[in-house]
Amino acid sequence: MFLKNAWYCAGWGKDLTLARDELQTRRIAGEALLLYRDADGRAVVMEDRCCHRQAALSCGRRENGGIRCMYHGWLFEPSGKCIEIPGMDTIPERARVRSYPVVERDGWIWVWMGEADKADPSLICFAVGPDEPGWRINTGQMDMKSNYRLEIANLADLTHIAWTHDKTFGGTRAYANARINYKLTERGLDYDFWLRNSPAFNVFAHLFPPEARFDFHFDVQMSLPCNFVMRFRTFIAGEATEGASDGQLLFDTWTCQAVTPRDEDEMDYYFSWGPSVDTDIPGLTQSLMAWIHEAFLEDKVTLEAQWERVKEKPDHPVVDYIHDAGPGKLLWLLDKLISEEQAAEAMSGAAMTRRGALV
Amino acid sequence: MFLKNAWYCAGWGKDLTLARDELQTRRIAGEALLLYRDADGRAVVMEDRCCHRQAALSCGRRENGGIRCMYHGWLFEPSGKCIEIPGMDTIPERARVRSYPVVERDGWIWVWMGEADKADPSLICFAVGPDEPGWRINTGQMDMKSNYRLEIANLADLTHIAWTHDKTFGGTRAYANARINYKLTERGLDYDFWLRNSPAFNVFAHLFPPEARFDFHFDVQMSLPCNFVMRFRTFIAGEATEGASDGQLLFDTWTCQAVTPRDEDEMDYYFSWGPSVDTDIPGLTQSLMAWIHEAFLEDKVTLEAQWERVKEKPDHPVVDYIHDAGPGKLLWLLDKLISEEQAAEAMSGAAMTRRGALV
Amino acid sequence: MFLKNAWYCAGWGKDLTLARDELQTRRIAGEALLLYRDADGRAVVMEDRCCHRQAALSCGRRENGGIRCMYHGWLFEPSGKCIEIPGMDTIPERARVRSYPVVERDGWIWVWMGEADKADPSLICFAVGPDEPGWRINTGQMDMKSNYRLEIANLADLTHIAWTHDKTFGGTRAYANARINYKLTERGLDYDFWLRNSPAFNVFAHLFPPEARFDFHFDVQMSLPCNFVMRFRTFIAGEATEGASDGQLLFDTWTCQAVTPRDEDEMDYYFSWGPSVDTDIPGLTQSLMAWIHEAFLEDKVTLEAQWERVKEKPDHPVVDYIHDAGPGKLLWLLDKLISEEQAAEAMSGAAMTRRGALV
Repeated sequence: MFLKNAWYCAGWGKDLTLARDELQTRRIAGEALLLYRDADGRAVVMEDRCCHRQAALSCGRRENGGIRCMYHGWLFEPSGKCIEIPGMDTIPERARVRSYPVVERDGWIWVWMGEADKADPSLICFAVGPDEPGWRINTGQMDMKSNYRLEIANLADLTHIAWTHDKTFGGTRAYANARINYKLTERGLDYDFWLRNSPAFNVFAHLFPPEARFDFHFDVQMSLPCNFVMRFRTFIAGEATEGASDGQLLFDTWTCQAVTPRDEDEMDYYFSWGPSVDTDIPGLTQSLMAWIHEAFLEDKVTLEAQWERVKEKPDHPVVDYIHDAGPGKLLWLLDKLISEEQAAEAMSGAAMTRRGALV
Repeated sequence: MFLKNAWYCAGWGKDLTLARDELQTRRIAGEALLLYRDADGRAVVMEDRCCHRQAALSCGRRENGGIRCMYHGWLFEPSGKCIEIPGMDTIPERARVRSYPVVERDGWIWVWMGEADKADPSLICFAVGPDEPGWRINTGQMDMKSNYRLEIANLADLTHIAWTHDKTFGGTRAYANARINYKLTERGLDYDFWLRNSPAFNVFAHLFPPEARFDFHFDVQMSLPCNFVMRFRTFIAGEATEGASDGQLLFDTWTCQAVTPRDEDEMDYYFSWGPSVDTDIPGLTQSLMAWIHEAFLEDKVTLEAQWERVKEKPDHPVVDYIHDAGPGKLLWLLDKLISEEQAAEAMSGAAMTRRGALV
Repeated sequence: MFLKNAWYCAGWGKDLTLARDELQTRRIAGEALLLYRDADGRAVVMEDRCCHRQAALSCGRRENGGIRCMYHGWLFEPSGKCIEIPGMDTIPERARVRSYPVVERDGWIWVWMGEADKADPSLICFAVGPDEPGWRINTGQMDMKSNYRLEIANLADLTHIAWTHDKTFGGTRAYANARINYKLTERGLDYDFWLRNSPAFNVFAHLFPPEARFDFHFDVQMSLPCNFVMRFRTFIAGEATEGASDGQLLFDTWTCQAVTPRDEDEMDYYFSWGPSVDTDIPGLTQSLMAWIHEAFLEDKVTLEAQWERVKEKPDHPVVDYIHDAGPGKLLWLLDKLISEEQAAEAMSGAAMTRRGALV
């Protein structure tokens, strides 16, 4: 089950630009989509399904910024409106393919999968894009054959880093005892925590003497469905045991991550990471990207195996612990938003039936 | 759903002859079949399923024109009758594998998938075989992972050539405005149309000056389930705008195509094409086969993607247009024949139950 | 459907020893299992599923003979008891992974898939292991994508050797007329038969003159679910037509075979074969293993194709013959044991409900 009235990430805009003559396909929340740029370079997302007999529009071709289905030649505007049916003088009003609201922001293409008139760009998550002045942000992507709810749980509890990412961002077990401040928002969850006086993470331990200690700050904003934005800062360990570190700021970074469910079994993961210009050092941006990629492969193995197990026994009991608080809150909110949406749909269906009955 | 009381093509006879010592398998209308030649060279089609415990007879071996199951050694005649059970002196009457009526005609092997006593060879479609005197017909085959009803619709509306086959038999958009004469028959659909004063198709445009114009005649006989026979003639463009072309006949050809559903998801496509001896020119027969193979790959991509979409949303609305007339008529007829067949089966089942009750 | 209160073979102990640092996985009777050796070298089988959120423990790591789940760091004893939850001071009683009773015997690791308090090592089948003094036993393994009931039927009727194994252990059709003595036991089936005055099997026919004749004795003990142990002896053909052969004993061998269903569609096959030290000759032990491996590949092809056919038509009628006696008895017994087990489970469930009601 998916939240429909929501913005889903359809990828990095620059990847679509590079493939300008190409028709790309996506699967988002169970829907087969066609993605391309129109004559003016605007990203267009349409259902990848001709309204005539369901031929795939992605087997068609771009024509003046629109799409021609190459089965029987029907031509569609980016709006989805059919403007030519070879052999017909008039075009039925119903000859229309679903087109989705699209916004391109912070380097990402966002698609609204619900009712078009409810599409509200203010609901798009905050992010620091690859072109943000003052930052050196690199991007990547990956797919995972797992359910996106498991990824939400993964991102809402970073204490798993100590274990799952032992070889990358591990190096201390202190994650488990982090005091995490959660704040549930209207469509997501914010949280932050400090690791203080901690040894280096394994990925960069070789750059410092073994006795070096650091203060790390994880400052996370998650928004449903499944976007994760974190300002992550590393300081030379200071004296403070409460509040901000009083050590020297070493690295100031942003990572922005968007997880898009293809369906219940698979998702696309679009991510970025990079330092501020002020705290960048030679090789850092490349290293961050290599490290995060390695870490996400660790998540991929974990989440794909977990999803196999969950599918085997969907009703298996669970045992809760303290760090389920984040995942619990966020999945509760997701379920609430989905059930509210479905209730509203049912109401609106009933209202339409009633109105129909009166006429 | 499939029409059972019908002839389905099981392949080219010569392909079975070349593999005389081999047991071939087919899947037709959901049934697993064994195909081989008996001691006299006659094609035999039996269910690929031993009556003992369902071992695959195709794992067995030919013996005196019959088949020995190599699990427990039961030996079957081509009729399906069991004539040896190692270890048993008597053979139960029930020890019998289903054998299907087979006719070899026009180079094709035809199998009757319904009740044997209803098998009527006069229902086999007309065709011009690879050995027809006066013609030079080549053959080919292909499989498609799509539903055969989509292929029926494809073949019953050749106006798709302008688009799907743009690179092969396209070169003009005039297909869409062709005036097509349809005639629904008892088990199929005949139709024909002219493209007049048309540029060359793209596959042979390089052989003529750009200003060359042609009259093309497409004369099609389709018979259910899914056989397509077409006399296709090319003339130097004449003056006539009604009736036969008064231009010079360049190429007179026959193409015969049999589509056999393996199941709802896959089909085998057996096809031929070739010119009359009188209109043949060096290289033509080979070129025709190369072109049609290329064109069927275009169909394959289209129909496989379309079937994916149809499976995702089987109840998705459709929008009709003028050239759906052919597909519409033929699929209506198919549905009618299937439902009549099922009604007759239900009647016959009820009659047997009643008779049983009286005894 | 599977018998739960039964010992299933989880593989050869030496294969687990060779991979001591590795976590192995198995699927047995539909359950995902983790298999490893604890600090003392004892084989441990646990459900491959963390009790927290179903992460796969096989993605974890061995720690002091226990297993740490590497998603959130929970640590489990071989008993399945959780002894550490990072971030928690107390550990809930429910934090427990299912651990299965394990016995290592005759070179095999045996797992009890039912209620632990019913695990009775005396139910483990008799076998002659690879370390049995006086014997030279080699081992092997294979997987088959077929249902284990078909394998039970295969092993309970060795007359199929004449056909399925025509190229290996065939060479005579006399199997079909063997007089087989069956004895149904509490949890299995014993049977034996003689092939007398028989030509050599095809695998070793080249070692003897064509006129050489042999007496073969097949002495089988099968135990559910699906273990097959056979003493197989080859004699120079003697005069006796009843009872023991009075010919010279050439080869005295044991083969032990354990078939473990992964699920309804797939199984693991663990097997051994070898001669007594007294009847061994140079090259014999290797040849026996090569021959049996070849023969099991013949079974694999047969049983995988048969399972495809059975899945297509699960209710297809069968025709019985004399040699179905063995398979029939054993599968009847399996069904009986399964239905008794299910009835007992239902009773116990009802009793618990009643007791709960009184409290």
